[in-house]
Amino acid sequence: MKLAITAALDYRLGDPVDLMLHIEAAAIPEQLIVNAVLDVGNCEYFARVAAQDMIGDRIWLRRGGELNVRYRTTVEIQRDLTDYRTLDKVPMHRLPGETVQYLNESRYCPANKFIHFVQDEFGDVEGGAKIGRMRDWIETHFTYVSGSSDAETGALDSFVERQGVCRDYAHVMVSLARAAAIPARIVSVYALGVEPQDFHAVAEVFLGGAWHLVDATGMAKAGEMAKIAVGRDAADISFLTAYGEIEMLNQRVTVEAVA
Amino acid sequence: MKLAITAALDYRLGDPVDLMLHIEAAAIPEQLIVNAVLDVGNCEYFARVAAQDMIGDRIWLRRGGELNVRYRTTVEIQRDLTDYRTLDKVPMHRLPGETVQYLNESRYCPANKFIHFVQDEFGDVEGGAKIGRMRDWIETHFTYVSGSSDAETGALDSFVERQGVCRDYAHVMVSLARAAAIPARIVSVYALGVEPQDFHAVAEVFLGGAWHLVDATGMAKAGEMAKIAVGRDAADISFLTAYGEIEMLNQRVTVEAVA
Amino acid sequence: MKLAITAALDYRLGDPVDLMLHIEAAAIPEQLIVNAVLDVGNCEYFARVAAQDMIGDRIWLRRGGELNVRYRTTVEIQRDLTDYRTLDKVPMHRLPGETVQYLNESRYCPANKFIHFVQDEFGDVEGGAKIGRMRDWIETHFTYVSGSSDAETGALDSFVERQGVCRDYAHVMVSLARAAAIPARIVSVYALGVEPQDFHAVAEVFLGGAWHLVDATGMAKAGEMAKIAVGRDAADISFLTAYGEIEMLNQRVTVEAVA
Amino acid sequence: MKLAITAALDYRLGDPVDLMLHIEAAAIPEQLIVNAVLDVGNCEYFARVAAQDMIGDRIWLRRGGELNVRYRTTVEIQRDLTDYRTLDKVPMHRLPGETVQYLNESRYCPANKFIHFVQDEFGDVEGGAKIGRMRDWIETHFTYVSGSSDAETGALDSFVERQGVCRDYAHVMVSLARAAAIPARIVSVYALGVEPQDFHAVAEVFLGGAWHLVDATGMAKAGEMAKIAVGRDAADISFLTAYGEIEMLNQRVTVEAVA
Repeated sequence: MKLAITAALDYRLGDPVDLMLHIEAAAIPEQLIVNAVLDVGNCEYFARVAAQDMIGDRIWLRRGGELNVRYRTTVEIQRDLTDYRTLDKVPMHRLPGETVQYLNESRYCPANKFIHFVQDEFGDVEGGAKIGRMRDWIETHFTYVSGSSDAETGALDSFVERQGVCRDYAHVMVSLARAAAIPARIVSVYALGVEPQDFHAVAEVFLGGAWHLVDATGMAKAGEMAKIAVGRDAADISFLTAYGEIEMLNQRVTVEAVA
Repeated sequence: MKLAITAALDYRLGDPVDLMLHIEAAAIPEQLIVNAVLDVGNCEYFARVAAQDMIGDRIWLRRGGELNVRYRTTVEIQRDLTDYRTLDKVPMHRLPGETVQYLNESRYCPANKFIHFVQDEFGDVEGGAKIGRMRDWIETHFTYVSGSSDAETGALDSFVERQGVCRDYAHVMVSLARAAAIPARIVSVYALGVEPQDFHAVAEVFLGGAWHLVDATGMAKAGEMAKIAVGRDAADISFLTAYGEIEMLNQRVTVEAVA
Repeated sequence: MKLAITAALDYRLGDPVDLMLHIEAAAIPEQLIVNAVLDVGNCEYFARVAAQDMIGDRIWLRRGGELNVRYRTTVEIQRDLTDYRTLDKVPMHRLPGETVQYLNESRYCPANKFIHFVQDEFGDVEGGAKIGRMRDWIETHFTYVSGSSDAETGALDSFVERQGVCRDYAHVMVSLARAAAIPARIVSVYALGVEPQDFHAVAEVFLGGAWHLVDATGMAKAGEMAKIAVGRDAADISFLTAYGEIEMLNQRVTVEAVA
Repeated sequence: MKLAITAALDYRLGDPVDLMLHIEAAAIPEQLIVNAVLDVGNCEYFARVAAQDMIGDRIWLRRGGELNVRYRTTVEIQRDLTDYRTLDKVPMHRLPGETVQYLNESRYCPANKFIHFVQDEFGDVEGGAKIGRMRDWIETHFTYVSGSSDAETGALDSFVERQGVCRDYAHVMVSLARAAAIPARIVSVYALGVEPQDFHAVAEVFLGGAWHLVDATGMAKAGEMAKIAVGRDAADISFLTAYGEIEMLNQRVTVEAVA
């Protein structure tokens, strides 16, 4: 599967501000970057650093006036698509060290509060089957409502309100998985089939010795997503962080399957 | 400076539970482990994995009945003790990639909320001088009250309540630093001069190209601490995490300077 | 049904502090105070004011040293025991003015967040039947765990954690009712059958033109409770509020059925 | 002082919904309603009930389609304008019963958390002088930023963020007052001098045996406001509450001094 992806972001900046941009499909074994062009215009500086878990780059920029970002890439997905529902939980003492942080509570995922719910509702199955049941439970009980959450909304709120956007679905999914002692992180992606098309966020769980994508919204398939960034939750995967005042003018993402 | 350290932890476990122990002084360049003995008794398994930022090890255990941990070490501190107040802030685009996560909000450190306070109160100084002023502000305005916080208490609560224990002081310090776009993490340590003696937690900020310890409680000095673990906040540096029911029977830490 | 009730509270106060005591069974039509004795020792002052909704009295005291409260009463319950499950919801425009505040969100009952859950889970029934289904749902899904909550715990936490003590059960019950636009308040009571015996808290909902007691813990029956105080949530019905430092030494409640 | 007030609210409703409207200047001794016209169009029903503390009316409506509310009144303010800064705190045991609820924590005002801050910062003055210092502190340290808060924002957030709109200023003012054991409530008002002109919210504190208006934003004067409603916090004084989906089309308030 090859995905042709474009992203256009236009912002008004005023005085020069430091910005962190994180919008490129990551160059990692599971997805081949066939070609890529990123144009951010002239900047005071432009620097790349490896992002969380060495997946993708964070790009630092500094400029004022107007920022017009144009990104275009073709990515060939070569992901292992084993059905995670068939996989076993990795015993805790065999977890790779770098996955352990994804058992911990994070900004939007106070996972420990969900321990009793997870035991009560999903206590009869384990590993990938448990993750599958959690995912289905979320999709069944939640309603996707654009604009129903904001930068303050955490998994606790979403779980009670039973609605949200992709990041909220992912936060609840991540929290439930961690409450079952299964490492879980959030992933920002470009994905086919997202309506309305935009940056998308899904969960990823560590089962059977590898990470597996799980989309509780049901909109995207693991084989049809290009990963941008991973993190503990939305606090880590913002596609644009400004250290100063900015105003969004326009944002447009397209994702298409190509031959 | 050499520190002789002991820790004794006794827990009642009942049925076998998975446990994560994180109490050893880390073997890192800035502190030489002269000798160390860790005794956890017989376990179903015992596994070590590298912890956050490759500083120290997390140890996985599984056992039931009673857990009696005895740890003894001598650590020679060889830390660079440059006064952080004299150091410059690293421009964001020159931050090493692995420090960037420490600008983000975390479970107990919703740093963005403090941006206006930090600008108003500390806007006239930069870098290490700013960190110094923040530290002094916390020490002046806060009261150390044992038992005044719990596992739910975050920097927002502590900032308003103006009291807490070491982890709360560290959470506020970390939040203020991040709100000034200076990477900041929490560090669990064994430290001289902590009253009552116990595991201690302090902040660490990235200034002048390196990490520097900052104790807002004023109890411990950078040259008299042995680092155990680092993390985004207390969610990452728990010295004992149990995946099941346990009861603490006894906990005792000693730290002494030795020749 | 007559209840013989005693309460003994012993506190160490140090310097004189202002105290608000709220422990007497209320003299209201639905319960006849057959006899009552309240002894609080010598105080700098002792003043009574009518409490929330004119149900019961708040008593202001000021004293130092030690406070020993002894209260003893016999109350004859004459409450209308119509099964609330058979009653209709009062149309909003016919709600008495003083009940409307009990539709609003309060400190521990952020009811609006529960609107979708309530529609999804209980949308097929109305009025008293809906309240009954909510109550049963809570009792089925929650576990009563002494010490599992504290003064910070709200209905959002309890709903996710699925455990708590009587006040937590009441907060969730109140929140669900308000989310269905049915006025709901909390009531502190002396009740038969509470294990361990202590002050108890239940919900009360406005159905069919009157208030009806609902105990989601299932421990107490409407005909076997003596009301002490009502309020929006636990913030209003504290049995002892101290405006200064105090230490609890002893607290004992007994409730018995008498001929 | 006479105020000529108009309010126009236009909403799109779709299917018929229950609505609670609370926008009329209250008919209370301190302000004479010289004349008033309220036009809400045709409704399925229209019912008035006395609001919190018998100040003003809540109006229940039910209608679908479009709601166009037009309100016009002239109010003569006859308020006692004693400077609250000169007044004494009422000893707690002399507080009228109905003021005691305003010492308690509420949805947006978790006042107990502010006790240490209030002691540290304002511990050297009492009564009205203390309230005055609190008010000045808020005005000095906060910035009024339209759109900086939402329905989730409480006094804890605002205190840390040091910004907000009128309701946030009022919530912090109310919280600080209650933390000093001075009854405090929120009041929605029409006020001269509010920029941009809109419904306004201020605090009211109980000093010297009466309620006194306090505007921490500094925009409105006690003698130039017409009270609409009082409550524990913003949860009680919403000018329009819809029990169903609605969309705001237009809202306009004017307040002018007239001869």
